[in-house]
Amino acid sequence: MSPLPADLAARLKRTADGLVAAIVQQHDTGEVLMLGWMDDEALERTLTTGRATYWSRSRGEYWVKGATSGHHQHVREVRLDCDGDALLVKVDQVGAACHTGERTCFDADLLELR
Amino acid sequence: MSPLPADLAARLKRTADGLVAAIVQQHDTGEVLMLGWMDDEALERTLTTGRATYWSRSRGEYWVKGATSGHHQHVREVRLDCDGDALLVKVDQVGAACHTGERTCFDADLLELR
Repeated sequence: MSPLPADLAARLKRTADGLVAAIVQQHDTGEVLMLGWMDDEALERTLTTGRATYWSRSRGEYWVKGATSGHHQHVREVRLDCDGDALLVKVDQVGAACHTGERTCFDADLLELR
Repeated sequence: MSPLPADLAARLKRTADGLVAAIVQQHDTGEVLMLGWMDDEALERTLTTGRATYWSRSRGEYWVKGATSGHHQHVREVRLDCDGDALLVKVDQVGAACHTGERTCFDADLLELR
């Protein structure tokens, strides 16, 4: 049973492994910082603690952003998209969002338009 | 075999159904417009045509944004994230990005922080 309020749980369209994509954006500059994944429990924790919390697909565990790095994400706003399969999480990011030390996870790899 | 250049294809970390999440952002205002999904072919078409092209999970087909609505997305930049499972597609959006007529797919549903 979902820990989320029933009306919200009913609006989510999850992947086969129970996840919804979470786009993380710096609330004031508009920078897209990273993409995380949330299941119902991670979303519930994010909404109730104000700290962005994700499900790690590679490690198979919950993680609170910044718990080990100190690079917390203070949640300002969470929005669900029109078909329920994506969240937009607006945060105030402390330090670097990317584990590589870059400000965002999209800084390093610009693809060539051909 | 992937239609993408081999070095790029090797950097993608796809879902079980072969997809990478594509965050779509208005290039100048920073608005997050929508989340789409791309397989290798959709990404190749996006990079070579300059028109954002997605894989529709619900319809099981490729779609060029704007092909029926006229609400094209002219691609300015495509970036891959640090772990290869998300793309950031910066576009110039014509008209509304959302099929509901809203400017973005995240306009309608603000979740309550409790």
